[in-house]
Amino acid sequence: MFRSPIKHCRACGAPVVYRLPDDGDTRERAICTACRTVHYENPLNVVGTVPYLGERVLLCKRNIEPRWGKWTLPAGFMELGETALQGAARETDEEAGAHFQIEGLFSVLSVPRVGQVHLFYRARLLDEQFAPGHETIEARLFSEAEVPWEELAFRTVRETLLRFFADQRLGTFGVHSVDID
Amino acid sequence: MFRSPIKHCRACGAPVVYRLPDDGDTRERAICTACRTVHYENPLNVVGTVPYLGERVLLCKRNIEPRWGKWTLPAGFMELGETALQGAARETDEEAGAHFQIEGLFSVLSVPRVGQVHLFYRARLLDEQFAPGHETIEARLFSEAEVPWEELAFRTVRETLLRFFADQRLGTFGVHSVDID
Ligand SMILES: [Zn+2]
Ligand SMILES: [Zn+2]
Repeated sequence: MFRSPIKHCRACGAPVVYRLPDDGDTRERAICTACRTVHYENPLNVVGTVPYLGERVLLCKRNIEPRWGKWTLPAGFMELGETALQGAARETDEEAGAHFQIEGLFSVLSVPRVGQVHLFYRARLLDEQFAPGHETIEARLFSEAEVPWEELAFRTVRETLLRFFADQRLGTFGVHSVDID
Repeated sequence: MFRSPIKHCRACGAPVVYRLPDDGDTRERAICTACRTVHYENPLNVVGTVPYLGERVLLCKRNIEPRWGKWTLPAGFMELGETALQGAARETDEEAGAHFQIEGLFSVLSVPRVGQVHLFYRARLLDEQFAPGHETIEARLFSEAEVPWEELAFRTVRETLLRFFADQRLGTFGVHSVDID
């Protein structure tokens, strides 16, 4: 979901210019030269889960760009009309076809460089049957030692997994708020 | 930040139609009839704080629509280029002019009806000097009994305050994930 600059107004199609609005806003916005509509651009949420069974965590090998062939936790862009938890469950179903029970929020990671916030929920797997969708080459369980740490798709996945295994050793799960440069 | 339907392509200005994309996506998207760009619309994040001093919490009386004259926690739309925590701190500075130290994530509330996720951080106030900006009529501290519960601007503020005072009585703060119908 790459975002190029706004060039035209979504309401009327006329060109926009980037300038300060007249309402005291301190940031330049794309403003329509014809109908004056102010167009805002804001961060996007990526929602997903840490699906686990005992000591092992489920990872999916990506069949899509970016990071084709790299391993990830099931996650994707949150959609309108759903809660963060519903989106995380939907992505886990779509990408892994797993059977699970969501247990709670686990990590909230801001990635300002790409304008995203990633939210991961803990999901206890109910069995080892997976049915990955078309976005996934393979879905399988990894112990901490087996995780392909050098082949993970995203920093947010790495930071979430590190905290998950650490908390599991402690025997208690926190909720982690993380900033990623 | 009301969002009307997309009528024109932000890249080329031509009309769009809402239909299923050709990439396996299962949701209708606004797709340009000329350059074929697919335009996505996703939930927005509102970031803010629960600024507190001892037993009391800082609320701001809104000088803007919606909910002019109602009381709220300092919060606003997260911007590109900042973390959720940075956005929460910025809004607290802009709306209340408070001096504070952020202590940690406190609540994550999904509001699918309006396509938003609200994130609140605990902020310990360092003094009682406030300098509200133009979006705020008045900023003041309220004990739990003094909070104008019937005059709060948003459900997410109410749900966050209820959990804050409950945790404060317990003597330990959790991180709360809440869905609001
Ligand atoms: Zn326009
Ligand atoms: Zn176009």
